[in-house]
Amino acid sequence: MSVESTIQKMALAAKNASLQIAKCATSQKNEALLQIAAQIQEKAAYIIAQNNKDLMRAKEMEISEAMIDRLTIGDATIQTMIKGLKEVAELEDPVGSLSHTWLRPNGLQVSRMRIPLGVIGIIYESRPNVTIDAAGLCLKAGNAVILRGGSEALYSNQALAATINQALGQTGLPGNTVQVVPIRDRTAVNALLCQTEYIDLIIPRGGEGLIRFVVDNSKIPVLKHYKGVCHVYVDDGANLKKAEEICFNAKVQRPGVCNAMETMLVHKSVAQNFLTGIAKRFDAAGVEIRGCPETCRLVTGAKAAVQDDWPTEYLDLVIAVKVVDNMDQAIDHIAYYGSDHTEAIVTSDYERAKRFVREVDSSVVLVNASTRFNDGAQLGLGAEIGISTSKLHAFGPMGVEELTTTKFVVFGDGQIRE
Amino acid sequence: MSVESTIQKMALAAKNASLQIAKCATSQKNEALLQIAAQIQEKAAYIIAQNNKDLMRAKEMEISEAMIDRLTIGDATIQTMIKGLKEVAELEDPVGSLSHTWLRPNGLQVSRMRIPLGVIGIIYESRPNVTIDAAGLCLKAGNAVILRGGSEALYSNQALAATINQALGQTGLPGNTVQVVPIRDRTAVNALLCQTEYIDLIIPRGGEGLIRFVVDNSKIPVLKHYKGVCHVYVDDGANLKKAEEICFNAKVQRPGVCNAMETMLVHKSVAQNFLTGIAKRFDAAGVEIRGCPETCRLVTGAKAAVQDDWPTEYLDLVIAVKVVDNMDQAIDHIAYYGSDHTEAIVTSDYERAKRFVREVDSSVVLVNASTRFNDGAQLGLGAEIGISTSKLHAFGPMGVEELTTTKFVVFGDGQIRE
Repeated sequence: MSVESTIQKMALAAKNASLQIAKCATSQKNEALLQIAAQIQEKAAYIIAQNNKDLMRAKEMEISEAMIDRLTIGDATIQTMIKGLKEVAELEDPVGSLSHTWLRPNGLQVSRMRIPLGVIGIIYESRPNVTIDAAGLCLKAGNAVILRGGSEALYSNQALAATINQALGQTGLPGNTVQVVPIRDRTAVNALLCQTEYIDLIIPRGGEGLIRFVVDNSKIPVLKHYKGVCHVYVDDGANLKKAEEICFNAKVQRPGVCNAMETMLVHKSVAQNFLTGIAKRFDAAGVEIRGCPETCRLVTGAKAAVQDDWPTEYLDLVIAVKVVDNMDQAIDHIAYYGSDHTEAIVTSDYERAKRFVREVDSSVVLVNASTRFNDGAQLGLGAEIGISTSKLHAFGPMGVEELTTTKFVVFGDGQIRE
Repeated sequence: MSVESTIQKMALAAKNASLQIAKCATSQKNEALLQIAAQIQEKAAYIIAQNNKDLMRAKEMEISEAMIDRLTIGDATIQTMIKGLKEVAELEDPVGSLSHTWLRPNGLQVSRMRIPLGVIGIIYESRPNVTIDAAGLCLKAGNAVILRGGSEALYSNQALAATINQALGQTGLPGNTVQVVPIRDRTAVNALLCQTEYIDLIIPRGGEGLIRFVVDNSKIPVLKHYKGVCHVYVDDGANLKKAEEICFNAKVQRPGVCNAMETMLVHKSVAQNFLTGIAKRFDAAGVEIRGCPETCRLVTGAKAAVQDDWPTEYLDLVIAVKVVDNMDQAIDHIAYYGSDHTEAIVTSDYERAKRFVREVDSSVVLVNASTRFNDGAQLGLGAEIGISTSKLHAFGPMGVEELTTTKFVVFGDGQIRE
C-alpha cells in the first residue's frame, strides 16, 4: 500500500473512532486511562526492550548524546508516563458541560455545550513520553488522535501504541482512538497534512524547522508556536532582590525550554545597581551576557550584542540585555523582537503593572513572577498538549479544554421565527 | 504600484492601526461607532449617488435583478446601517475583561484576559451593508479590518469607507482601522490571503465558490461555512401541530438563507398524519417536495428524490423529505449528508431530545424550534459577522466575542519556579 493510502486509511479509521469516543461517558474514558497506565506498568520490560532497538539504531547513526538522552525510556520514564495518565484521569471532563444558559425574550433557552474537536494529528520529535501525554489528553477530551513521532523513536512509539490499543480494547473503546504512524519517511507527514476531510487539527511540537515545515504544508488548521523569545522587564523602582530572583530563575533554572528568558530589559534608573548584582550570579552560573552599549559599560565581561541577538531564542546559558529609557521602550522592543510567547514585568508601580499586562500582546503576561510559569500544569490547567502563540482558538498553554470546542444548543417549545 | 504592494501596504497600515485600536477605551470605540452612524446620515445623498454609479455599471453588465436588488442602497438601507451601528455601540465590550481568577498553591493569581485578534480580512459579495456591519463589529472588538467587497459594489464601498474614515478621524482613532480594497481585480484577493505577517483571520461571506476559493488560497486561518444543509427531524410521538409550524417556518419564511431547512426527516410512525397535513401547506406555498419512496407513496404530487438531493442546499422553495425507521437513522443521515450547520428535532420524548442534542455534531442543535434561529441576533449574541461550521475557534454564529481571544495574565509577588 502506498504511503498516501496507508495514511488515508488511518485517518478514516480515526474519524470513525472519534464518533464513538465523542459519546463516551467520563467514567469509561477514565477507566481507559487507568487501564493504559496499568498496561504500561505490566509491559514495561517490552517497552524498554523496543526502546533499546531505537537506541541501538540511533547510536549507529551517530545521533547526538542530547537526542539519545531524550529518546531513552528508563524505569523513571515509565513511572512518569503512568503518573501523567493518572493525573489526566483526575482532570475534569469538559465534554458535555453546558456553560450558563440564557433565556431569549421568546422563551428559547440557549446554552453552549462543550464538545470534542474530532480527530487531532500530533507531529513531534524524539521524546516518546509525548506519545503517552498526547494520547491521554486527546482521549480525555473525547478526540481520536494520530501520532507521528520522530522516526528515531518508531519502535518505542509502536510499542506504546500497541499497549494503548490493548488497554482501549479491554475497556470497550475503539483501538483506533490512538494510532501511531508506522512510516519513517517524511512523505507520511505530507500525507497526514492533506487529510482535511478527516483530521480537524494539527499540533506540531519540536524545533522551529519542523514547525515551519508543518505550517507551510498543512491544509488543516495548525496550533503551534515557533519559538519563545521571552522577556523580563525590570522597571524603575522595582524590588531589585525580587527582580534578581525572577530573572535568575527565568534564565538559569532550565535554559533549554521555550519559556526560559532570552532577553532582559532594564530601566536605566536601576541598571547600575541591578546589573552589577545579577551579573555576578550569571557569571557564577556560566551565563554569557550580550549587552547593549550601556550594559557593556556597566558590566565587565559583557559582550556587545549584535542586531541578530534581539530576536534569538538561545535555549542556552546566554542572555541578551538592554537598558531602556522607560517602559514604552520596553513594550516596543517586545512588540518588535518578541514571539508573543511569555513576557514578565518586575515592578512596584500599580499603573505600570496594569498597563504592561494590558498592552503586551503575549500569550502569558506576568507581573513579578518568572516566565517559567507559562506551562499548563503550573497555571493550573493540568497537563498540556503544547503552547500556542497564534491567537485563533487557543493562545498560551493548551490543556484538555483547548482540545474541545462548543456548539450551541437551544431548547424551545415550538418557537418559530417571525 | 502593483496589486501586491498596494495590498501589503494596506495590511501593514492595518497592523499599525490595530495596535492603537486594541488599547482604546470602550467609550472611545462607542463614540466612533455613533459618529460613523451620524456621518452616514449626513452623507446619505453622497453614498446613494455613489451607489447609483455601481448600479448603472451593473445594469450595463446585465447583472441579474436579484443581484441588483442586493446591491441597491436606498433610504431604508441607510437607516438599517445606522440602526446596526447603534446596536453594536450598545453591545458589551469584551476587550479587557478578566474571566474568573484562580489562585495557585504558590500564591500566583491567574486569569484569562479577553483581547482583540488584531487584523481581520473580510471577503464578501454584493451587499454593501456588510461593509458597515463588519466594520462596526471589528471596531467594537478592538480589531482593524480590511474589507474586500464585491467588485460590483466598489463605488458604494469606497463611499462608505470614506465616511467611516472621516468619523474615525473626528473621534481621534486611526483612519486605517477600516480600509476597503480599492482594486476590482481578483488578484487583490490572492494578495490579501498571503499577508500572514499582518492579517490574523480571514472571514469569507458569500456563495460556496467564493468560499472554496478563499480556503484553497489562504495562508491565513479562515472561519467560514460552505453551505447550510439544515435538517428537521420529526420524532415518533412529536406534537404534530408544533412540528408543522416549525417545519413550515424553517422552509418557507426565508428560503434563500443558510439556516433554512433543506431536508425533513420524519419518523415512520407519524409519517402519514404529518406528511399529508404539511404537504397541503407546502403546496399552497409553492414548495416542491422531493421524497424518498415512502414519502412519494404518502404524498400525492411528490417527486422522487435522487441521490444528489440529500446533500443539496436548494436555497429555494424545494424540500427533500425522507421517512426514517428511528432516530438513529435520522442522526446517521444528518452525519452523512449534513453540513454541520443547523439541525432541529421536534419531539416530546425527554431521552431522545437529550440524545439528539448530544450526538448531532452541528454548530446549532435545536429542540422544538425552527432552524431559522441560527443567527447571532436571534440567539442573543448581538449582530453577527458570520457563521462558522469549522470547529476551531468558533462554531456557529460569530458575534463580537468571537472576534477576540484570550491571553493569560498572572499576578505574583516574586514567585519563581522550583
